[in-house]
Amino acid sequence: MTARAVIERIQQKVGVPWRAQTVDTFKAGDPETTVTGIATTFMATYDVLQRAAASGKNLVITHEPTFYNHEDQTKDFADDPVYAAKAAFINQHKMVVFRFHDHWHARRPDGIMAGVIEALGWEKLRAPDQRGFTIPSTTLDGLARDLRDRLKIRAMRVIGDPELAVTRVAYSPGFTSLQGAMRSLSRPDVDVLVLGESREWEGIEYAQDAIAAGRKKGLIALGHAISEEPGMKECAAWLKTFVTEVPVEFVPAGEPFWTPK
Amino acid sequence: MTARAVIERIQQKVGVPWRAQTVDTFKAGDPETTVTGIATTFMATYDVLQRAAASGKNLVITHEPTFYNHEDQTKDFADDPVYAAKAAFINQHKMVVFRFHDHWHARRPDGIMAGVIEALGWEKLRAPDQRGFTIPSTTLDGLARDLRDRLKIRAMRVIGDPELAVTRVAYSPGFTSLQGAMRSLSRPDVDVLVLGESREWEGIEYAQDAIAAGRKKGLIALGHAISEEPGMKECAAWLKTFVTEVPVEFVPAGEPFWTPK
Repeated sequence: MTARAVIERIQQKVGVPWRAQTVDTFKAGDPETTVTGIATTFMATYDVLQRAAASGKNLVITHEPTFYNHEDQTKDFADDPVYAAKAAFINQHKMVVFRFHDHWHARRPDGIMAGVIEALGWEKLRAPDQRGFTIPSTTLDGLARDLRDRLKIRAMRVIGDPELAVTRVAYSPGFTSLQGAMRSLSRPDVDVLVLGESREWEGIEYAQDAIAAGRKKGLIALGHAISEEPGMKECAAWLKTFVTEVPVEFVPAGEPFWTPK
Repeated sequence: MTARAVIERIQQKVGVPWRAQTVDTFKAGDPETTVTGIATTFMATYDVLQRAAASGKNLVITHEPTFYNHEDQTKDFADDPVYAAKAAFINQHKMVVFRFHDHWHARRPDGIMAGVIEALGWEKLRAPDQRGFTIPSTTLDGLARDLRDRLKIRAMRVIGDPELAVTRVAYSPGFTSLQGAMRSLSRPDVDVLVLGESREWEGIEYAQDAIAAGRKKGLIALGHAISEEPGMKECAAWLKTFVTEVPVEFVPAGEPFWTPK
């Protein structure tokens, strides 16, 4: 079974039309390579590639980029030694990397959110809309601690009054743009926006200003990897339902950060 | 003295030619307003504006945006209630906001770095190049703790082996692009890159891969505000040397984040 055949099967099964414009393409390796095993991951870091190769998985399906930018453009740093080492490792181990971002989010329900909801145990807390949850009454600090403990986060960041009463949560996996932060925080039925990352002069400043303007809001930044990684564990489980010829395994990229004690 | 007259004096004194293309422009208010006092800050958040107004400062000189995006474009969210409240506050209090980013960095020495170096007590640790420092031998964890304690950081994030031997530091204030992270981390004379913020799929993934590739490197993300704010305290001190007609005060924006205990 070739890497291309695996991806064609994904395209048939994902349940949404495959887009003409998408980042969901092969990023490295030869699509005609015979697959020995499949690793799904949040991000195909060098460390993830090493662990995948060590366990005999030569097709890596990654949610985020392999080469440090959204389009995986590498022409500007073809001579960079870290890039060169990673690219050489992929070649030496006959690996193939495919990105699965746009369509895994486009699936209904969103494949990333499906995994997040399972990791949080929030299956029964879902509000009628896609990304809203109504949780048992707590405080911003209480929710932050609960998320930290469930997702085992080392370096979480929170904005707002720790004693803020919280019951209605918007969850925005990954990077949240200004427009996304505005949309969530301006909803009267959202007490707290949980996201992966947002720039300090965009969504973060907006959250600070919403609070300074007297709105009862909070923001919890989990980190991008933490906020989406369970969705790629879900992806491995989904792949196993229709790829049975080779082993499929979730290889966690993990939280990149730690914080001094 | 009008706000425009203050800015013209800054343009005369900053020591570098004023650029045709720059974000250093008036962002809100009437430049012909008579100035009652000047506040310098990392970012003109709503909270900073309220504190500046309360102490009689109606000209706010901000390093980062006022309206949640680099260009301070507001046409797409003219009806947003948080934006509207902030804009109304500026009008009601006859305030003027001017951004001072490009030229304060362009000044030699870089005005932001001058303030950071003073805050860190690193005046005598400077390497021959602009942003490099040679610090007493420590570990990555030791440097992280020292920075946390000196800058009073609540939510710092670190990548790399805590026991990594560290003596040569590159300091990149604010947002670090992929290109910036590559440049610093590929230098043989840099053990650790200290920065404000970088996206997880750009500079952060690159740092993870540099380490996985066997390079002895670390990265410390202070937060954008923390990494630059001392430079706007320095700006207030500098302004006082040639603006004596009105009070000048540094109004800290502060670290936006906290972390649950």
